Amino acid sequence: MTYCIGLNLDEGLVLASDSRTNAGVDHIRRAGKMRVFAQEGERVVVTLSSGNLSLTQNVLNLLEHRARHEPERIGILNAQSMFQVAQVVGDAMREIRGRDEAYLRDGGIDPSGSFIVGGQIAGEAPRLFLVYSEGNFIESAAETPFFQTGEIKFGKPILDRVINKHTDLVTATKCALVSFDSTIRSNLSVGPPIDLLVYKRDSFKVEIQQRFEDGDAYLQSIRNHWNDSMRRAVAELPSPEWA
Amino acid sequence: MTYCIGLNLDEGLVLASDSRTNAGVDHIRRAGKMRVFAQEGERVVVTLSSGNLSLTQNVLNLLEHRARHEPERIGILNAQSMFQVAQVVGDAMREIRGRDEAYLRDGGIDPSGSFIVGGQIAGEAPRLFLVYSEGNFIESAAETPFFQTGEIKFGKPILDRVINKHTDLVTATKCALVSFDSTIRSNLSVGPPIDLLVYKRDSFKVEIQQRFEDGDAYLQSIRNHWNDSMRRAVAELPSPEWA
Repeated sequence: MTYCIGLNLDEGLVLASDSRTNAGVDHIRRAGKMRVFAQEGERVVVTLSSGNLSLTQNVLNLLEHRARHEPERIGILNAQSMFQVAQVVGDAMREIRGRDEAYLRDGGIDPSGSFIVGGQIAGEAPRLFLVYSEGNFIESAAETPFFQTGEIKFGKPILDRVINKHTDLVTATKCALVSFDSTIRSNLSVGPPIDLLVYKRDSFKVEIQQRFEDGDAYLQSIRNHWNDSMRRAVAELPSPEWA
Repeated sequence: MTYCIGLNLDEGLVLASDSRTNAGVDHIRRAGKMRVFAQEGERVVVTLSSGNLSLTQNVLNLLEHRARHEPERIGILNAQSMFQVAQVVGDAMREIRGRDEAYLRDGGIDPSGSFIVGGQIAGEAPRLFLVYSEGNFIESAAETPFFQTGEIKFGKPILDRVINKHTDLVTATKCALVSFDSTIRSNLSVGPPIDLLVYKRDSFKVEIQQRFEDGDAYLQSIRNHWNDSMRRAVAELPSPEWA
């Protein structure tokens, strides 16, 4: 399984992904799920992959291959809008699925995958898309300015309660890390390291990108503080009348 | 869908269930999922149902029918231990499935269901079981003194973080209600009213049983306090180094 979050806020974007892939519990390995495509001053595009690893890797490999060998073709690095980026990713998804799907289904393998695609291209505000397995896609809305993919349920309540379009990037980052910690704690198939990228609106460069390994001191302090806060918060709730 | 929680703690049991059943989003109705079997001074047994409503209702109907018409037969009201109660429930599950399953599968209907069964019979400590669709069952352990059924993921992190065997009944009740609120907020198919029963160890009677309707003032105050606490708790987390 996987866990990825993308938030599109007034101040910019927060994107995070775990690094555990598995084909059964006896076949777990690490593979980063965040890929960054940047041209300083002009665009930053980030993809977060979830689902079948060969599908999502090869979608990106195909796009990288073409960017190098077919520079005239529209790709992530020369698309004119994030809408067009999402289209390109969706088209590549369909192309790779078209190549592999029948073979995967023959082997009883789930051929699906999806991408969170966030970024900003000069001339636009930052935008965030969710590209589905079928190659179609949706864009985040002001009312729910985030997408999650993979093992989404454990970490959703904290996002539902705290995040809105106006949440600042620091608060949103803390909230995203808590959401990851809740998920990792409750589900074995989601695991560190956690990749985090915080993109400041109109910066057109990647200034904040961090990888949190398992024993990371900051991540551990977030976890400890959060556990204490939760216990205190429950204790401080109003008591039932019979108590 | 459904959400049920049972906690088996040093001080006693906390049991809670929602009341929404659905056969598709256009066919939602209310049906309590908590059933209490009590003989004051001697036993209190509580069942929480999830899954196919005809299966779980008829398991209980069968047990009630037999308790009345075949009093010599071992049932919930005369079993000598909670282990035997779980056996009786599991056997009834198999009996009803045997009667209905082929017909349900013919109609493409999921014939599965499960019960959380908690209670205390004189001579034993309180015990908590999870009876599976197949009629087999497990008992809660000191390390993880709770069971959830149905839509379990949204409300699991708060239980994982707060509940242990020594948690007092008031704290456990608040925590269970927060777990319900998180689930209801994130999933349309789980809905109020919430049935709550708190059983004090060695009391052998039902003293605390409440139904929280949607607009319930206490439930609302829990929800508001919790939202405030979460936002404050995120704000108070240590900031990343780049902040």
